[in-house]
Amino acid sequence: MQSFTFHNPTRILFGRGQIAKISREIPAAARVMLTFGGGSIRQNGVYDQIQAALKGREVVEFGGIEPNPTFETLMKAVDKARQERVDFLLAAGGGSVVDGTKFIAAAVPFDGDPWDLCLRHTPPASALPLGAVLTLPATGSESNGYAVITRKSTLEKLSFGHPSLFPCFAVLDPEATFSLPPRQVANGVVDAFVHVMEQYLTYPAEAPLQDRLAESILQTLIEVGPRTLAEPQDYEARASLMWCANLALNGLIGAGVPQDWSTHALGHELTALHGIDHGRTLAILLPNLLWVQREGKRAKLLQFAERVWGLREGSEGVRVEGGIVRTREFFESLGVSTHLEDYNPDRDRAEEIVARLERRGVLPLGERKDLDAAKVREILLLCR
Amino acid sequence: MQSFTFHNPTRILFGRGQIAKISREIPAAARVMLTFGGGSIRQNGVYDQIQAALKGREVVEFGGIEPNPTFETLMKAVDKARQERVDFLLAAGGGSVVDGTKFIAAAVPFDGDPWDLCLRHTPPASALPLGAVLTLPATGSESNGYAVITRKSTLEKLSFGHPSLFPCFAVLDPEATFSLPPRQVANGVVDAFVHVMEQYLTYPAEAPLQDRLAESILQTLIEVGPRTLAEPQDYEARASLMWCANLALNGLIGAGVPQDWSTHALGHELTALHGIDHGRTLAILLPNLLWVQREGKRAKLLQFAERVWGLREGSEGVRVEGGIVRTREFFESLGVSTHLEDYNPDRDRAEEIVARLERRGVLPLGERKDLDAAKVREILLLCR
Repeated sequence: MQSFTFHNPTRILFGRGQIAKISREIPAAARVMLTFGGGSIRQNGVYDQIQAALKGREVVEFGGIEPNPTFETLMKAVDKARQERVDFLLAAGGGSVVDGTKFIAAAVPFDGDPWDLCLRHTPPASALPLGAVLTLPATGSESNGYAVITRKSTLEKLSFGHPSLFPCFAVLDPEATFSLPPRQVANGVVDAFVHVMEQYLTYPAEAPLQDRLAESILQTLIEVGPRTLAEPQDYEARASLMWCANLALNGLIGAGVPQDWSTHALGHELTALHGIDHGRTLAILLPNLLWVQREGKRAKLLQFAERVWGLREGSEGVRVEGGIVRTREFFESLGVSTHLEDYNPDRDRAEEIVARLERRGVLPLGERKDLDAAKVREILLLCR
Repeated sequence: MQSFTFHNPTRILFGRGQIAKISREIPAAARVMLTFGGGSIRQNGVYDQIQAALKGREVVEFGGIEPNPTFETLMKAVDKARQERVDFLLAAGGGSVVDGTKFIAAAVPFDGDPWDLCLRHTPPASALPLGAVLTLPATGSESNGYAVITRKSTLEKLSFGHPSLFPCFAVLDPEATFSLPPRQVANGVVDAFVHVMEQYLTYPAEAPLQDRLAESILQTLIEVGPRTLAEPQDYEARASLMWCANLALNGLIGAGVPQDWSTHALGHELTALHGIDHGRTLAILLPNLLWVQREGKRAKLLQFAERVWGLREGSEGVRVEGGIVRTREFFESLGVSTHLEDYNPDRDRAEEIVARLERRGVLPLGERKDLDAAKVREILLLCR
């Protein structure tokens, strides 16, 4: 087991009607900015519940944060927050709204060009406190310190993170997710699954508890993913999906173990260049990345095949491939195509992706730092 | 899944040499009181590492906190802390030292008789901040808000808890545990195992992820418990035990599920009246309690037998009993007797225990509140 620091200060308020409790989580004198996306919170009752909880408070609003939140949009929110002297941010939405709100939190007091938070990973000297009301179980952003921001002008999608960006609280009410489009639910299942895989499917590190915790989330996602797609208003299935997605990226399962994150690094490029949903880029990439990286990941691929998919028969090669095939089939069973061509990309941009990764100096990727330009090309070739 | 609030603000510093980091976790101007037990920290190097980390700070010391820390001893520490105007407590030891230090933290600013914290569960209006350097993986006290205190004069062992009593930080260095006596290590494995069982072995609550997380800890304890007893200086085994014991009682696996805690309630009586180690009281009680409660716990006992012990053959009755027998055998394999008579209790005190529980109004116990006086007698009768 590697040495680690684990600290997750976010207070989780989980269950029906928990939005009502946010009033005691936000300082009474705070000037709050409520941030949200395209307005679905007005249809699903979340907006009304928040208004009821914050009755009598000073609340300004900033709507229109898009999926893959953009620097361009968020800087408008930064201007508004500065003008209105906002000192608490309340994000209501999915991972994009929460990520975007983290950027606002760090950018409002930032001295200099806030894009440096993403591009140069300049640590923020301070950040506005924020809370989250989650409406889409997927990214885990509601209780971690990370965010991914897209710059439209340069088609860059970059991540940043800081301990000051953990939300103070996160409301996880499964009922707030009942009206989600199936497409977004499926994306969320894939996203949570791949978050686990980035921290689990590496090499053995004498961390048997972390391995089992990761397998627990994978097994539960396999169990409840299809069920919650079939029955969107099944509270219990949605609750388990929501808790899985949260624990997949709250820092716990990655504490003390090697981590990969190359599927995400490549996925961000597919989103930035082709506009493909984040979860879908991961579904396209993961099976092919595991295949190309199968030698370095062999021991964990065998463990994954056996413990997660119950594959105990056949040669090691058969089981390694079997686990990857089952993973692909699982994504497809959720209605998520694992083939790039199904998303009608306008052209092959493999060389452009390699060049961009090289320019940012992030290659080689992977837990062994062995995923070089040649392997990126190989993976992208398999992604057709 | 039940609704829940989960909040664990303790920063975990895990691994070799992490004690050196405590200086940045404790405010520079703090007047620190270092609390410890019988002095083992002077032999195992922990004391020296703490002194090195806090060089130049004002540190007063209070040693001699006993296993099952007593109100009588702790009140001396409270007096000293008040006299010395201490404003930060640093506990170095096992669960008893950490529990005792939580009592000191709450008692120093307490207005009234501090025993009311335990007896009447009076919430503390404030508490001194505390940190912990753990030397014995067992109770999980290093990152939760609970403590158990014994009053020698009345032979009462009572628990209390408050969110203000979470340690700010906890150092978990597996090397700090290498010199533990095997008896304490075995007790720790049993304690962690039973902490999981109190939160897992109840009734199904549509919480498949929580179930699997709990089973993950149980399986890992079964795997590393004997190994770490056989090879005390095997860093990896000790590290896994330490992380298991922490996660067994940091609030995570109990979030959203019913909880029992009757094994602990009865165990505290056996310790208070017979002076038996806490872990050993649990090993004596748990198998018999599961047997007496087997109808209400049937579904989870079957799941436990299958998933934790791999028992898939035979009738339901055979598998229920098999899981309980395996659990007893596991405790015995660690050198922990599960028979009360092996601890030479001076006399049968079953009626006294029932009377004490009734006087405190805690009966009936259990996740279904069905463990009444008659069942307590039945369990204690089986504990011979």
